Amino acid sequence: MNTSVFDHPWLGGLFSDAETAAIWAPERQLSHMLAFEAAWSRALGACGLFDATLAENAARAIEQATISPEALGTGTRADGVPVPALVEILKTIAPAEAVHKGATSQDVIDTALAMTLGETTGLFLARLDQLIATLTVLERRFGDNELTGRTRMQAAMPITVRDRVLSWRLPLDDHVARLQALRPRVEKVQIGGAAGDRSALGDKADAIVADVARALGLRPTEKAWHAMRDGIGEYASALSLISGTLGKIGQDIALMAQQGIDEIALSGGGGSSAMPHKSNPVLAELLVTLSRFNAAQLSGMHQALIHEQERSGAAWSLEWMILPQMAMATGRGLGAAIDLCGKVERMGTG
Amino acid sequence: MNTSVFDHPWLGGLFSDAETAAIWAPERQLSHMLAFEAAWSRALGACGLFDATLAENAARAIEQATISPEALGTGTRADGVPVPALVEILKTIAPAEAVHKGATSQDVIDTALAMTLGETTGLFLARLDQLIATLTVLERRFGDNELTGRTRMQAAMPITVRDRVLSWRLPLDDHVARLQALRPRVEKVQIGGAAGDRSALGDKADAIVADVARALGLRPTEKAWHAMRDGIGEYASALSLISGTLGKIGQDIALMAQQGIDEIALSGGGGSSAMPHKSNPVLAELLVTLSRFNAAQLSGMHQALIHEQERSGAAWSLEWMILPQMAMATGRGLGAAIDLCGKVERMGTG
Amino acid sequence: MNTSVFDHPWLGGLFSDAETAAIWAPERQLSHMLAFEAAWSRALGACGLFDATLAENAARAIEQATISPEALGTGTRADGVPVPALVEILKTIAPAEAVHKGATSQDVIDTALAMTLGETTGLFLARLDQLIATLTVLERRFGDNELTGRTRMQAAMPITVRDRVLSWRLPLDDHVARLQALRPRVEKVQIGGAAGDRSALGDKADAIVADVARALGLRPTEKAWHAMRDGIGEYASALSLISGTLGKIGQDIALMAQQGIDEIALSGGGGSSAMPHKSNPVLAELLVTLSRFNAAQLSGMHQALIHEQERSGAAWSLEWMILPQMAMATGRGLGAAIDLCGKVERMGTG
Amino acid sequence: MNTSVFDHPWLGGLFSDAETAAIWAPERQLSHMLAFEAAWSRALGACGLFDATLAENAARAIEQATISPEALGTGTRADGVPVPALVEILKTIAPAEAVHKGATSQDVIDTALAMTLGETTGLFLARLDQLIATLTVLERRFGDNELTGRTRMQAAMPITVRDRVLSWRLPLDDHVARLQALRPRVEKVQIGGAAGDRSALGDKADAIVADVARALGLRPTEKAWHAMRDGIGEYASALSLISGTLGKIGQDIALMAQQGIDEIALSGGGGSSAMPHKSNPVLAELLVTLSRFNAAQLSGMHQALIHEQERSGAAWSLEWMILPQMAMATGRGLGAAIDLCGKVERMGTG
Repeated sequence: MNTSVFDHPWLGGLFSDAETAAIWAPERQLSHMLAFEAAWSRALGACGLFDATLAENAARAIEQATISPEALGTGTRADGVPVPALVEILKTIAPAEAVHKGATSQDVIDTALAMTLGETTGLFLARLDQLIATLTVLERRFGDNELTGRTRMQAAMPITVRDRVLSWRLPLDDHVARLQALRPRVEKVQIGGAAGDRSALGDKADAIVADVARALGLRPTEKAWHAMRDGIGEYASALSLISGTLGKIGQDIALMAQQGIDEIALSGGGGSSAMPHKSNPVLAELLVTLSRFNAAQLSGMHQALIHEQERSGAAWSLEWMILPQMAMATGRGLGAAIDLCGKVERMGTG
Repeated sequence: MNTSVFDHPWLGGLFSDAETAAIWAPERQLSHMLAFEAAWSRALGACGLFDATLAENAARAIEQATISPEALGTGTRADGVPVPALVEILKTIAPAEAVHKGATSQDVIDTALAMTLGETTGLFLARLDQLIATLTVLERRFGDNELTGRTRMQAAMPITVRDRVLSWRLPLDDHVARLQALRPRVEKVQIGGAAGDRSALGDKADAIVADVARALGLRPTEKAWHAMRDGIGEYASALSLISGTLGKIGQDIALMAQQGIDEIALSGGGGSSAMPHKSNPVLAELLVTLSRFNAAQLSGMHQALIHEQERSGAAWSLEWMILPQMAMATGRGLGAAIDLCGKVERMGTG
Repeated sequence: MNTSVFDHPWLGGLFSDAETAAIWAPERQLSHMLAFEAAWSRALGACGLFDATLAENAARAIEQATISPEALGTGTRADGVPVPALVEILKTIAPAEAVHKGATSQDVIDTALAMTLGETTGLFLARLDQLIATLTVLERRFGDNELTGRTRMQAAMPITVRDRVLSWRLPLDDHVARLQALRPRVEKVQIGGAAGDRSALGDKADAIVADVARALGLRPTEKAWHAMRDGIGEYASALSLISGTLGKIGQDIALMAQQGIDEIALSGGGGSSAMPHKSNPVLAELLVTLSRFNAAQLSGMHQALIHEQERSGAAWSLEWMILPQMAMATGRGLGAAIDLCGKVERMGTG
Repeated sequence: MNTSVFDHPWLGGLFSDAETAAIWAPERQLSHMLAFEAAWSRALGACGLFDATLAENAARAIEQATISPEALGTGTRADGVPVPALVEILKTIAPAEAVHKGATSQDVIDTALAMTLGETTGLFLARLDQLIATLTVLERRFGDNELTGRTRMQAAMPITVRDRVLSWRLPLDDHVARLQALRPRVEKVQIGGAAGDRSALGDKADAIVADVARALGLRPTEKAWHAMRDGIGEYASALSLISGTLGKIGQDIALMAQQGIDEIALSGGGGSSAMPHKSNPVLAELLVTLSRFNAAQLSGMHQALIHEQERSGAAWSLEWMILPQMAMATGRGLGAAIDLCGKVERMGTG
């Protein structure tokens, strides 16, 4: 009963990417939330806000908890967030007084998100490297071949394959730099408590934040960032910039593959139910689709920047609807681009 | 491993709507595709393009086929559409020469889409009626109560609750009219064949189109509409108009529910993991979220209007990414609005 | 100092359309606002809410007023709307007690908008007719020529030029139907007064509304529609649907005009500063640009559907930023499409 | 006859910002284009590609040229770009053989754009500093006052004004960092020649690029960046991130200013034509409008990332439609935010 192309039984064949899907899977999100709750209990125990033994017991019980994602559905329907339901379950399996106290929903969900974004960035950096390498091979193999330079879709002047491929590859270096610069702006703990001011933590706030951050591999923060969504909006932009470059590659390849133009030969290619002889540049078109998708989604993510007061339920859940899909589209785009560029058997005229 | 909020184990609790999901489920899409293939075989049999007995045998075999949606995944990855894989399977269970011949992928997929849109429209018309009735009750119960009219979020002049509720209800009547006017523009068979010109059908084309249309409860067409996406784009607009009205209702209610304003009382309301006493207007915010989501998606659907030549793989699959989610968001919005308005216990000052 | 392409000294050469610009010009908007104020004074005079002679004097003075648009700039900066400044001026040239009383900013501005939309629809219907005629000529001249049907940008099967041109022309008929169906939903007076409930008009409200509507050539309304923006959102959708069809025409022509494909010959075509021999299909590309522009803008217009309470300053002024430009893009698109299709000297192979 | 709110005789009062408008004015764009042409002639003279004396004469004549922006309108209509018309004029006032040779339209236009972006960044960095200072004053004056923390628009826990203001100010520091990091990625010469490969410059290419870059205060580049639009797309994202933070500030202030909430007092405020007593938070709403505008525009800019081959007329001119307006919206937003925050007379409860 999945309507999303990323989880769809047959469209998923075209649109899904297993590694990205694993990072964004509910099971993994839940595991990050549990990691936060365990780190929280431990950190408050270490600071004396919880009894130290109880805290350690709670942390261990939380770490070993096996909670079904489905168990959080009813609570989310009622509360708009899964955390009250999750905390209720945790209190039945761990010492209740050492669980979640002083934390709030956004701490759990946004810290888990930061962990997810960290994993996503790791994967995408590796894929960017791989795509850069693939394009470097293309350049080495076909770079000196002649190609008709085309402006406004009209034949302009002869160029080389190298010129075209460089316009695909060079932006990837910048994408790597962007993602790396972004890491400290998004891979950071969100800790604020009920109204975002960490008041429940008193003078232990800094120590607790540092402790939780260390445990989760995130950066500590001086203030809760929950109501400041610019890092998330920038992350969405970076995803769309990546898929935009991939969209250009796809569009160029689809144009090169036209009969009458014939500037590229690809192995494989999709079949047609009516014309078995056709070889459709499915992956090239897919890159265009994914980039137009992300470009449209980006406006939704930037609408969500208007996050009123200490927490906007409306703006926050708009991110939940969009950001995972942007990540999926970008991950699939990177995978498809690597795949597509690896299928190039000829470019230009030797 | 679902990343979409509509299929997510816990976020689905908040975002999903069972009836809309059933209409857009892959199983149901597949059943529409099979219905097309069966009607196709029969219609070509009736016209003498297939052997009549073979055609009827094929149609029956197709109707009784139980095909796993997952079986189409590998083929879709290769071909960009599920139809070649589907046809291949069908040819193993039905007389191959009376299956799909003269049809093409877009005929199967877009005719199935037309059926899905018909069912969606039916459901949404019923929900609009229900919401109109719910708002009429609110008006009857609280209409004469006084409310502060607010312009630019500032107190302006006293109005009545009726005035506010009418601004929620009257657009719903127009939405009903819009959906009804749209039915003939989208609930129509797509039949074109390989290049969209029905050339394989010769002088039998009109009869076949009429026959298939009748069998599937759709309108016949003079020409394949596959490369003319204005009906689909208009449908997406209609969905966003509906969710836009719901978003205004939600935003108004969220503003009325503020402490210090206190113009509405709602039963239920979401809990907080940090402040158990809070009663959050979760559904009101959800309506805002869903409408902003659809507004953003709409731009993607209208980018897909630029559907080049006889079939744009890129533009077409962009629709697949977006339209189902817009329908889900609209369906959930209608359900949530009915639910929310049914929870109103007081509006304005009596 | 114009940054908009529609008013830019050189980009305006490419992007602007004189007739659409005249309809949306501030001078014309101001003239509609004055027409409203005159009709208002007269209608309230006729009903006895203003002294009849004073009312007529006021109406005539308003009709003959020559007000510089610039005179309203400072007031708009302070008030967010031009109406307080306008009314202040009017009260110096007409009997103050028979001016604007019982009306409010949204009555003036949105009624003027309804008049502008009426004129826009009139122009665009005429242009659609003209484009339909131009395409019918193309079909007559070149319809039987052969063309390679292309799916996924790959050669599929031979079709005729007629098949391709029909996919451009048929949606235009539907656009005509859409605009006509929309007229009653947008060409209607907005009358509400301070809080939108017409309370200042007492039992004369219906008569006044009918009177003003008649004077301005608009439809009367039972209730102020200011806070119900679905008609405006639907209008924006209709514009984007039109430009979407034009975008497909432009994309198809740009693809047909590629060297190596050579399926179309156009007279004229843009020059290059580096390659004087080139003939660029500038208008074809322009159609693509304008349609992608409108598709993006549409999401902004639908975000503005969430128009809270009796007047949202924020959502309302978002429309002002976007809707005029969508109209300009659509008007230019229609003009450019007529121009471009009139330049076709050959299509397909005879 | 201006339809853009930024240039509109009365709406410009609300929406326009003189300093941003001056940077983006056609006159200034033209002056940058002339600066490029002069630097080009000089650089090619210095390298021996033009006769050195002729080159210097050409450069001086170009620098002293007074060309009316309107003179480029007809040429732009025909060619899609103003450069052929500009070059034609330049060749009448300067030695023709030392003008523009080896350059092309995108070199002139995109290098001029890089200069415009440099000036824009300079202005916005100064404004961000000013806004940070203004918010720091607010924090100093009112930071210890009590405020009701609000989550999901419901009263949560007491916080301080400092907490709220920090969520407005801290993202501004990140915006400063983003703009600074972006400078080298956008403030760089575009030099490619007819097909983007600098082939007309032979082995002098690097020297010429360095020379032109130095003359214009831009960074040299190893390759033409015309077909790689990621820097431009990232710039648009940065603008929308800034206006998104401003939108949050505006939304928060509009909510604080509600009667019944009364958490802020502002001097000034807009009048109403119907209710002279009202004081509308016009600038607060304007910030919301501008941020929603930019969020919608951003999707158009990212659609334009799909810039096919060596030059996409369609994608490129889509940027021209959108980017200047995003800059104007951001500039006005920064100005309005500084203005608005300077009008705060009270926040929270002392």
